[in-house]
Amino acid sequence: MAGNSFGKIFQLTTFGESHGAGVGGILDGCPAGISLDMEQIQNELTRRRPGQSAYTTPRDEKDKIEFLSGLFEGKTTGTPIAFVVRNTNQNSKDYSHIRDTYRPSHADYVYDKKYGFRDYRGGGRSSARETLARVAAGAIAKQVLAVKGIEIQAYVSSLGKIKLDKNYKELDLSKTETSPVRCPDEVIAEQMQQLIEETAERGDTLGGTVSCVLKSVPVGLGEPVFDKLHADMGKAMLSINAAKGFEYGSGFEGATMNGSEHNDRFVSDDGDIKTATNHSGGVQGGISNGEDIYFRVAFKPIATVMKEQETVDKQGRKITLEGKGRHDVTVLPRAVPIVEAMAALVVADHLLRNQTGMLSK
Amino acid sequence: MAGNSFGKIFQLTTFGESHGAGVGGILDGCPAGISLDMEQIQNELTRRRPGQSAYTTPRDEKDKIEFLSGLFEGKTTGTPIAFVVRNTNQNSKDYSHIRDTYRPSHADYVYDKKYGFRDYRGGGRSSARETLARVAAGAIAKQVLAVKGIEIQAYVSSLGKIKLDKNYKELDLSKTETSPVRCPDEVIAEQMQQLIEETAERGDTLGGTVSCVLKSVPVGLGEPVFDKLHADMGKAMLSINAAKGFEYGSGFEGATMNGSEHNDRFVSDDGDIKTATNHSGGVQGGISNGEDIYFRVAFKPIATVMKEQETVDKQGRKITLEGKGRHDVTVLPRAVPIVEAMAALVVADHLLRNQTGMLSK
Amino acid sequence: MAGNSFGKIFQLTTFGESHGAGVGGILDGCPAGISLDMEQIQNELTRRRPGQSAYTTPRDEKDKIEFLSGLFEGKTTGTPIAFVVRNTNQNSKDYSHIRDTYRPSHADYVYDKKYGFRDYRGGGRSSARETLARVAAGAIAKQVLAVKGIEIQAYVSSLGKIKLDKNYKELDLSKTETSPVRCPDEVIAEQMQQLIEETAERGDTLGGTVSCVLKSVPVGLGEPVFDKLHADMGKAMLSINAAKGFEYGSGFEGATMNGSEHNDRFVSDDGDIKTATNHSGGVQGGISNGEDIYFRVAFKPIATVMKEQETVDKQGRKITLEGKGRHDVTVLPRAVPIVEAMAALVVADHLLRNQTGMLSK
Amino acid sequence: MAGNSFGKIFQLTTFGESHGAGVGGILDGCPAGISLDMEQIQNELTRRRPGQSAYTTPRDEKDKIEFLSGLFEGKTTGTPIAFVVRNTNQNSKDYSHIRDTYRPSHADYVYDKKYGFRDYRGGGRSSARETLARVAAGAIAKQVLAVKGIEIQAYVSSLGKIKLDKNYKELDLSKTETSPVRCPDEVIAEQMQQLIEETAERGDTLGGTVSCVLKSVPVGLGEPVFDKLHADMGKAMLSINAAKGFEYGSGFEGATMNGSEHNDRFVSDDGDIKTATNHSGGVQGGISNGEDIYFRVAFKPIATVMKEQETVDKQGRKITLEGKGRHDVTVLPRAVPIVEAMAALVVADHLLRNQTGMLSK
Repeated sequence: MAGNSFGKIFQLTTFGESHGAGVGGILDGCPAGISLDMEQIQNELTRRRPGQSAYTTPRDEKDKIEFLSGLFEGKTTGTPIAFVVRNTNQNSKDYSHIRDTYRPSHADYVYDKKYGFRDYRGGGRSSARETLARVAAGAIAKQVLAVKGIEIQAYVSSLGKIKLDKNYKELDLSKTETSPVRCPDEVIAEQMQQLIEETAERGDTLGGTVSCVLKSVPVGLGEPVFDKLHADMGKAMLSINAAKGFEYGSGFEGATMNGSEHNDRFVSDDGDIKTATNHSGGVQGGISNGEDIYFRVAFKPIATVMKEQETVDKQGRKITLEGKGRHDVTVLPRAVPIVEAMAALVVADHLLRNQTGMLSK
Repeated sequence: MAGNSFGKIFQLTTFGESHGAGVGGILDGCPAGISLDMEQIQNELTRRRPGQSAYTTPRDEKDKIEFLSGLFEGKTTGTPIAFVVRNTNQNSKDYSHIRDTYRPSHADYVYDKKYGFRDYRGGGRSSARETLARVAAGAIAKQVLAVKGIEIQAYVSSLGKIKLDKNYKELDLSKTETSPVRCPDEVIAEQMQQLIEETAERGDTLGGTVSCVLKSVPVGLGEPVFDKLHADMGKAMLSINAAKGFEYGSGFEGATMNGSEHNDRFVSDDGDIKTATNHSGGVQGGISNGEDIYFRVAFKPIATVMKEQETVDKQGRKITLEGKGRHDVTVLPRAVPIVEAMAALVVADHLLRNQTGMLSK
Repeated sequence: MAGNSFGKIFQLTTFGESHGAGVGGILDGCPAGISLDMEQIQNELTRRRPGQSAYTTPRDEKDKIEFLSGLFEGKTTGTPIAFVVRNTNQNSKDYSHIRDTYRPSHADYVYDKKYGFRDYRGGGRSSARETLARVAAGAIAKQVLAVKGIEIQAYVSSLGKIKLDKNYKELDLSKTETSPVRCPDEVIAEQMQQLIEETAERGDTLGGTVSCVLKSVPVGLGEPVFDKLHADMGKAMLSINAAKGFEYGSGFEGATMNGSEHNDRFVSDDGDIKTATNHSGGVQGGISNGEDIYFRVAFKPIATVMKEQETVDKQGRKITLEGKGRHDVTVLPRAVPIVEAMAALVVADHLLRNQTGMLSK
Repeated sequence: MAGNSFGKIFQLTTFGESHGAGVGGILDGCPAGISLDMEQIQNELTRRRPGQSAYTTPRDEKDKIEFLSGLFEGKTTGTPIAFVVRNTNQNSKDYSHIRDTYRPSHADYVYDKKYGFRDYRGGGRSSARETLARVAAGAIAKQVLAVKGIEIQAYVSSLGKIKLDKNYKELDLSKTETSPVRCPDEVIAEQMQQLIEETAERGDTLGGTVSCVLKSVPVGLGEPVFDKLHADMGKAMLSINAAKGFEYGSGFEGATMNGSEHNDRFVSDDGDIKTATNHSGGVQGGISNGEDIYFRVAFKPIATVMKEQETVDKQGRKITLEGKGRHDVTVLPRAVPIVEAMAALVVADHLLRNQTGMLSK
């Protein structure tokens, strides 16, 4: 039983390999009557593209999305929204040399074992190109959430050993997009850029963390006891290529605190019930409580390095893999729109799920 | 759309409030023909009970499970397995004083908002007592996995600021159960016990982390691209009460490494393909690769403290909540069997899902 | 992957064998805040009991339901509603003589083949006793639907070759419950009773059809293109033991008509849009159109006859099965509350599904 | 919660409107390693096309399918198989005149009510063109089933009042495809053709029934108690546009029989256990028993007639709808490949579901 669908009501099913015809998906369960800004969707895809930065041409014709259904006169119709992004360079390279190679920390070996064989061209289904479909659907989800005033902003909060040690409230998140590394703190961003350059020179790669903040999520989203909002959020994030960890609110640090300091006491704010602190990260008992939701995701360094590596082939014979070509040093800046997209999918799904908790009038 | 089911093929649906008739569940999709050791199931429930430790009487008649269906002549029949654990002390206490109180970092407020009202007795559905059903079903899952030789062992790896800073391979995990705090390192365990006593005296509570190791999981479990094995594992863990974070393999630490040090190169071990290191934590591309799977879960400190706390009531009026009664200082030792149970449910589900990846002969 | 759950949002999962501890279920996704009349639920169970008729004592203590969760102060809480009906006579009979027998048109053979062995006592999971859980959950669904003014009424429309050849609009459906065979036409009902008596004397059994009418279902229920309202209704009915066919609206007869006579033209009724005729059976394009929904279900004759039958045992050896004991001649009158219950589950589920079609204000 | 997915393991999700970019789908969960004959898939689509008959050019370039993913070197890879069939004539016609019209027995009215507005061009999502995606995925399912030796054959068994009153065993089903009306009995087929011509002259339309036979389905498919094989089959059939009824095995006729004549006694056939008769239609207790599976589906007459019809517009104003253009008289011959496709999807799904009933070695 395969696992290419995400969400229960606002449900995305994706398809596509890096070197097949294209990648895309079907978004089923999107509410009818939502006006979609197509340019905004294309922008999100562009944010995700490799090699993007503040200096890149903003209008890039690549990774162009085509919608196949579900829209009429600029609005969602309540029927499935299908879309595809064509692969344009799928035949440009010969991959036969890695046909029988098991690259370290790639999915080659496990795909071969699980399915009997694999589409070895550029990683096939396990390629990061798959995340395109997530970003496209997430861009729709963001527009659904915008109707409710919900905002989502992610940023790079650490790269390698360089860490942005500030609470998101101390940051000006509007600076994220103008930073080439999508880090809103200019000093840290500068350090990160230097680290990328140094690491690139050594032919090595970097991991890091992305932090994400959701504002104005209404009280009540999340479904006990298994589909807690943060549990679905965690799954969403961990399902992104290269993710290694997830924490929300106080996270791992919260585990070292005492209850008396960790507890978020309730206060009345002009009749509204709020919490004085927010170690809970906007979620209590698995249900949003109206405070900001924030979380952090860890990504491992890219597995493709520009160095020789020892490994084995399909027959178990020792081989040496050479590092060649031009590859990214880190996925972190590109992970930002992917994290936002997955967060949007989770909240849109739970928004609709919560609409079934009581009989409507 | 509620969320009381977990798993897609090996699927558990749970029910129950802390002060209703009981808690329990239906396990649907358990393979037919598995011989179940009932005593072992009861033992797991006993491991989860409050106040358990090495010194407690091993045979405790409380939290006794009753099976209602799905078994015949000691074996699973392929039909749903229903079970219930009765609540025995549900009328022993008066909860009317918290009817309108929103306790800090509890689910009172969000339940009221989400459902319009709540069963306020002892936390109702949001009570940790709900995890009983997980442990019962997990105990069955463990026996299914045992047929395949799969083993699961969890332990407390940190409590408050005391951290067991050793790799699981350096530990003798068989010592976990004889430790009152379920920490297999005797020196650290002793420190943890002292911390519990000190914290109890101050009327405060503790969080911590549980680490878990799975051995002999076959290659191939996990379903790209959303139901990656570690993504479902992460969701499972994050769905446990009080969980704040999840990391597997190198985790957050892995995000600080370079690709060349993080990559797990493949080696041939007498024809078997293995990895020389295991930063991947036994999962690559979301699919198990045959190495040990290991992960860590963070739990926040218990929200009920024996101290006065300010908060508000339903009407937003400021009130002072007094700390009274006798409560646990930490859930960590009890979280160990719950983590194991959820891990077992995830792997059992993926074991069956993987049976559909190719046509059987 | 087992199939003991029904519905996607208003979801019932059932358990139980005829000779285990009991039968029951978990109803997850029931909206919060619905006041439940417990006596009405018990009444539905009593309607389903074998041997019921207008003459039986209305208050029968058997098949008594116990609720285990999900209710507080008489109302649904939004958490899972679990219930169980104990089997009281499960040890009264020795079934070892049918352990290896494959009774004609029973599920003995297929269960053995599918699961490797079976609980052979009284049919195990394949027993009609399983429908108890459907009726219990359906009784809750009916009360949810009643909040919206939706009514469901079924009746026996044929028994063996005796057919009630009238449109439901010509019948007084309030007479159904006072008829011992649950047929609202007194003349036909009398003929049916005679047929039952004659058939019983011959040791034989009868099939028949149940018709069902739903009134005041709002426009808009049903989800294209697979979960059309009538498709889910058909599945619901066909999942009942002994069901052989389903038709709605004009049904099989409609297939013989011309389009010009079959089409239901729209008319305006004081501003409301209605149809002049209702061959569509209240469903167009898979979506309810506000007209009465009506359908018919065929049930085969009971397989257990009081006659000698030739068959084989597990080893394929020819054996003669003797007809002994006291058995029902027909399930039809008892099928009436089951049909209603399943119809209620379908509509309740689609009512909630439809609440997610647009963003709520 | 929309309903554009079918199947639980072998799962099809479809998209597309009659006048958008195209129709298509994603088939997730198809087992890896199945060699696909692409020409055979295209042939099935051609069988479904309007205006097809024995006399039409066999090679028609329209409704050409494009596969976007999930295949490599001619085989399924275990990853999602996406496909699209472009709409080629979507702008050829002006539909603004029916924008506000509610055509009798079409889905116009209910779509407007359910979603707030609708894509009114050619029926939008409710168009029969949607079935293209079913046929494409069903063609893949057929090839999966062929590996197991399972065969599916449907045919037109009645048209209007002309009925083919023979058991499928008396027919030569290989003659179905050479018949312009897909009826394997030449005499009846001739009568049906005449009826079509007469009806066309009157500007009217016809309904009818399709019968379907499945051979060599292994014992054990079907999941009690809700996902019985015939219940899922019934839902599949009822989800096809214009379907009004479903019966399997003895069907509605079986409801008039006595148990002693209806029961299928078991016999031993050289060690194999078979049934002497097959009123059960190959399914007992919801599980396939190894006998032929057969069923019948009723379809209503096409709603678009070439006659004037009275109806109302969106505002409830009476209008007269004129019959113009060139339309099919009946869908029946084209329904044959659709019925086969849906049957194949159901069996492929249950084949995989059954692979999880016991632990594999």
